[in-house]
Amino acid sequence: MGTLSNTKVKVGIVGGTGYTGVELLRLLAQHPHVELVAITSRKEDGVPVADMYPNLRGHVDLKFQTPEQANLEQCDVVFFATPHGVAMSQVERLLAADVKVIDLAADFRLQDINAFEKWYKMEHSCPDVLRTVAYGLPELHREKIAQAKVVANPGCYPTTVVLGLAPLVQAANTLVDTQHLIADCKSGVSGAGKGASVPNLFAEASDNFKAYGVSGHRHQPEIVEQLQNLHGAPVGLTFVPHLVPMIRGMFSTIYARILPEALEVDFQQVFEQHYAGETFVDVLPAGSLPETRSVRASNKLRIAIQRPGNGDQLIILVVQDNLVKGASGQAVQNMNLLFGLPENAGLQHVAILP
Amino acid sequence: MGTLSNTKVKVGIVGGTGYTGVELLRLLAQHPHVELVAITSRKEDGVPVADMYPNLRGHVDLKFQTPEQANLEQCDVVFFATPHGVAMSQVERLLAADVKVIDLAADFRLQDINAFEKWYKMEHSCPDVLRTVAYGLPELHREKIAQAKVVANPGCYPTTVVLGLAPLVQAANTLVDTQHLIADCKSGVSGAGKGASVPNLFAEASDNFKAYGVSGHRHQPEIVEQLQNLHGAPVGLTFVPHLVPMIRGMFSTIYARILPEALEVDFQQVFEQHYAGETFVDVLPAGSLPETRSVRASNKLRIAIQRPGNGDQLIILVVQDNLVKGASGQAVQNMNLLFGLPENAGLQHVAILP
Amino acid sequence: MGTLSNTKVKVGIVGGTGYTGVELLRLLAQHPHVELVAITSRKEDGVPVADMYPNLRGHVDLKFQTPEQANLEQCDVVFFATPHGVAMSQVERLLAADVKVIDLAADFRLQDINAFEKWYKMEHSCPDVLRTVAYGLPELHREKIAQAKVVANPGCYPTTVVLGLAPLVQAANTLVDTQHLIADCKSGVSGAGKGASVPNLFAEASDNFKAYGVSGHRHQPEIVEQLQNLHGAPVGLTFVPHLVPMIRGMFSTIYARILPEALEVDFQQVFEQHYAGETFVDVLPAGSLPETRSVRASNKLRIAIQRPGNGDQLIILVVQDNLVKGASGQAVQNMNLLFGLPENAGLQHVAILP
Amino acid sequence: MGTLSNTKVKVGIVGGTGYTGVELLRLLAQHPHVELVAITSRKEDGVPVADMYPNLRGHVDLKFQTPEQANLEQCDVVFFATPHGVAMSQVERLLAADVKVIDLAADFRLQDINAFEKWYKMEHSCPDVLRTVAYGLPELHREKIAQAKVVANPGCYPTTVVLGLAPLVQAANTLVDTQHLIADCKSGVSGAGKGASVPNLFAEASDNFKAYGVSGHRHQPEIVEQLQNLHGAPVGLTFVPHLVPMIRGMFSTIYARILPEALEVDFQQVFEQHYAGETFVDVLPAGSLPETRSVRASNKLRIAIQRPGNGDQLIILVVQDNLVKGASGQAVQNMNLLFGLPENAGLQHVAILP
Repeated sequence: MGTLSNTKVKVGIVGGTGYTGVELLRLLAQHPHVELVAITSRKEDGVPVADMYPNLRGHVDLKFQTPEQANLEQCDVVFFATPHGVAMSQVERLLAADVKVIDLAADFRLQDINAFEKWYKMEHSCPDVLRTVAYGLPELHREKIAQAKVVANPGCYPTTVVLGLAPLVQAANTLVDTQHLIADCKSGVSGAGKGASVPNLFAEASDNFKAYGVSGHRHQPEIVEQLQNLHGAPVGLTFVPHLVPMIRGMFSTIYARILPEALEVDFQQVFEQHYAGETFVDVLPAGSLPETRSVRASNKLRIAIQRPGNGDQLIILVVQDNLVKGASGQAVQNMNLLFGLPENAGLQHVAILP
Repeated sequence: MGTLSNTKVKVGIVGGTGYTGVELLRLLAQHPHVELVAITSRKEDGVPVADMYPNLRGHVDLKFQTPEQANLEQCDVVFFATPHGVAMSQVERLLAADVKVIDLAADFRLQDINAFEKWYKMEHSCPDVLRTVAYGLPELHREKIAQAKVVANPGCYPTTVVLGLAPLVQAANTLVDTQHLIADCKSGVSGAGKGASVPNLFAEASDNFKAYGVSGHRHQPEIVEQLQNLHGAPVGLTFVPHLVPMIRGMFSTIYARILPEALEVDFQQVFEQHYAGETFVDVLPAGSLPETRSVRASNKLRIAIQRPGNGDQLIILVVQDNLVKGASGQAVQNMNLLFGLPENAGLQHVAILP
Repeated sequence: MGTLSNTKVKVGIVGGTGYTGVELLRLLAQHPHVELVAITSRKEDGVPVADMYPNLRGHVDLKFQTPEQANLEQCDVVFFATPHGVAMSQVERLLAADVKVIDLAADFRLQDINAFEKWYKMEHSCPDVLRTVAYGLPELHREKIAQAKVVANPGCYPTTVVLGLAPLVQAANTLVDTQHLIADCKSGVSGAGKGASVPNLFAEASDNFKAYGVSGHRHQPEIVEQLQNLHGAPVGLTFVPHLVPMIRGMFSTIYARILPEALEVDFQQVFEQHYAGETFVDVLPAGSLPETRSVRASNKLRIAIQRPGNGDQLIILVVQDNLVKGASGQAVQNMNLLFGLPENAGLQHVAILP
Repeated sequence: MGTLSNTKVKVGIVGGTGYTGVELLRLLAQHPHVELVAITSRKEDGVPVADMYPNLRGHVDLKFQTPEQANLEQCDVVFFATPHGVAMSQVERLLAADVKVIDLAADFRLQDINAFEKWYKMEHSCPDVLRTVAYGLPELHREKIAQAKVVANPGCYPTTVVLGLAPLVQAANTLVDTQHLIADCKSGVSGAGKGASVPNLFAEASDNFKAYGVSGHRHQPEIVEQLQNLHGAPVGLTFVPHLVPMIRGMFSTIYARILPEALEVDFQQVFEQHYAGETFVDVLPAGSLPETRSVRASNKLRIAIQRPGNGDQLIILVVQDNLVKGASGQAVQNMNLLFGLPENAGLQHVAILP
């Protein structure tokens, strides 16, 4: 990169027709240091992006192109907003052309290849690349991301649960029972993506609440792997995702039993110190109750700590916009780190309320 | 039919997997004079209905069957809750077995075969049957329906617009300018059916409002044909449907210019007289403003008449539940007429509010 | 009561302007053994009920009356759908007139008067009556209710959590760690009542998800008291309620740690046996995931049991309609028991889906 | 104002606790040429703005102040986001201190004082100021606004209907029947403001659609006055507002009868020419159907022209975000004009979709 006043990061997006794709476009179209050069969709080849996403009319002039036409090797960085398995099939070619890669799918999230292959039901095609990848949670891995060539953008649920538990499971910590953690998580429907499916129809999902994936969800092993890395020891987690009739937003209610030796700890302070100075992680004042709308369309994640009756049950409440801090905003935050830009560049939007 | 105290109407349903199908099941499961004998779905063959529709657990024990297994000829009446074109392919076989037919699709709604073939893009396979059909709007065609063997259940929009304009376009009437009627209609998303489609996803349709079909919608010729039959002369109608982010409910705002010679007419009285004694059409007191929730899950249609500033613009506001009076409830009302049952049998549910 | 074929239960409702009031009216208007004789509201004195609740037009002809006019002593039973504190101020007068009382508020839910006075911030005015009250959870206290003169209709959250845990905490049971139960509960907005308040505005509550009352909620001591009565020993419960952007529906996700000596127990069977034969409690097949809409506007409560990875964490998922089984439907079920009517009389509505 | 590189516009807000207030704060907090100096609320005196509006945490550090403390005379401009009647009581004092005023309420929208007093039921306290006011619709009155000291920010409905009809009613135009215009308008619930009221509760307004104000609404005379100013002759308008269960968004379906002499006119071209070069008014390509979400949280207003069957009925479809182009965004646009800033400064947000 030259000096920032002269040069912009050239960005390509593979598979920009889904919700993380349009959200990337919204954020990048307003980013002061980015030049959008290509967006690919084999199916929508030739269609102006703004025809599919009318909110982008007047902001994005690109048309969807085939990957062949798009010449992604000219980019400084390519985002994959694709189904699982696409990024790993193209990453080596891009790395060879000195293009950095940020994958919003799961191809590089799990270092445990067996777990990956079990949960995603596909063989991993580039384990060598996988070993070099940075897990893109900037608040925990800022330096590694800045040095990386490939960033695995975390899953939406893992972002809330890992950031919500990180201060408690740090290496030396003996604060809570790490064998019986519970994450009761709730997501807006956009988390299910833009694919046509009956359960996500308005007439099915509206005025309704349900759990899903209770017997097993792909984000559970991702959370556990990250927590174990932090903790340096095995971690046990019960993870129950639920679907909320709202478009955007994620709310995680996390339960951890305080160990007898930690009953005197000031957990509010533990969290405030851990996230002091972070732009995008906001530890709310003691006694607060977060709402998802307080972060709607912004890259903030807010955390509140509760301990009813000052007992041995700690409750951590975490909110984010699943499409921003839980996906595309975090991807842009990772891009900023990759290119030495201010970490908050293009990400200072105020949340939309009401 | 024997005496009602001893005998129940044997009912079959073809294609019961969509929203009009499950709504028929909800109504018929509680109907005092009905025995549900078969429901068909080739795709769901063998699946208990209650597995697909958990609200029916404990109320309906049927399984979906193939049409072959279902032996629909044993029924007294068969409802078609199918895509357009299915009923007309099976109606002759059923009539031959002395089974009556109520079609919730459009196969028999338009007497004008050219219009049918233009709008539904298929050839009509049984024009002879078509000529014998009763259009199933009981408040206008009660006697014809009672005599019919095949009933064409009206479209959801036509039910509101035809009932909303009928008192004004009756044969002798010279009340309003019938060449420039406007129906600005709004429907809940369940009207689009249960097919998986991107525009009807929660994340697309929620927190959004849009028009559709402005350049042409299949219900426009149906409304016009019915109004012309009532009026005995050509009628002009602009019809603009919109999609509302709610599951059920239809609201039609109808504009009619009062003719100079009718400026002294008491239109509130015109409507009250026209619908006096009707169980399911409720003309609200002068000055009322209806809400869709006042009829949610009930077979009522409510009408209010407004005339701002006592000028020459008449506004008729009509609400119904698109799945009940706009579809399955009206179909049951037609069934009651076909079999000499009390017209309100099984249809006396109070609307759900809130 | 005379014989049922001749006589109807004469019912009065005090304070029928809120959501539990209108829901009582919806259910009682269709109840085969009920005669609605009076409904009181000092504020709405003289207003037809159907003017306030247009869904009742054509179904309920009553007007609101002052309590003085209403002559509630003529009733067989009076429902209190009032703020906390009203029922206890009137109950003695009604009992003296041989009128039974069902209170939908909290006046008689807690036998522990200290807890009542702490949580509801009012003195209890009739502790003598309180000691005779039946807690109106028919599946647990059917016989006591049938003998009672006053029934305390349970809170909405307690109905789900107590029924969801009852099979696990029965006297002799050593199945789960009863000191660390967790109930992560989610309610539709109608649970907050019809009072005008900013947080419950559409523009505040829609497209949003939040927790509330985490540091303490009135239903927590109610649940604990009931569980302790069943268990015969102290019980520890963390209770976190959340607000879901839907009108009706309640979903409770309950976490219980299985004791080492119970790891071989078939918990699906425990629940199925416990609720065998119940009309309104439906234990779903193993592997099921309930949805709130499967009980919308019906008196059913559905329970599913999950045990991820066959580990030591049991998850009980419970759904109900907070206004029906969680309030007015359960109140009618209690009335049926009080008067020897079939327990399901007037309560057999199929849930509305979609 | 000095040169912009050195100086920022000092902004005060009176009454910032409502939805237009928080939206002003969202926009102004991100505006490159603005310094927020004061926000008043007598009721919330001393409360940090971010405590009431958690989306502003980290973006706005102001506390609410009493008007006395706020010293609004130090500002360059003061926005009134207050109930009707407040701005006119304070405007003269501010003008005397050389402070410009933008009123988001109705105090200065109607030049016809009789109409104002009839519809708003209060006396107008400063008719002299009223005569100098610019009506803040920049696309029609850009130059007058730039010269004004007081700007009357238009109502939300008038913005859509006046901009939707302006190209048709321009002075010389004889394109449509201007005596029988119809505006069938639909608004999200935030348009009703943040006051606690039963009809706007989630449990009342969700899953429901209704009309309101059909017999008379305050925005009707405002629209008519503006159209008559453009047309130079009387205009007749039927205006029917409806409430949509969505937070933000306004959709106006406008019907105009084409005059016989104008049947050959290309109306698409009329609109495209009229709004050529406008940043915030987007005439969609022929055949388009706009959606409210395409402008959610942005200052764009989009217009589509439809003419079914190429007949004599013209339909103009207009969408905006009622809180942005319909209120606070337009107010900022007016501020930019008042201070010679680029008209789009601080207003280039991309709409949030999904």
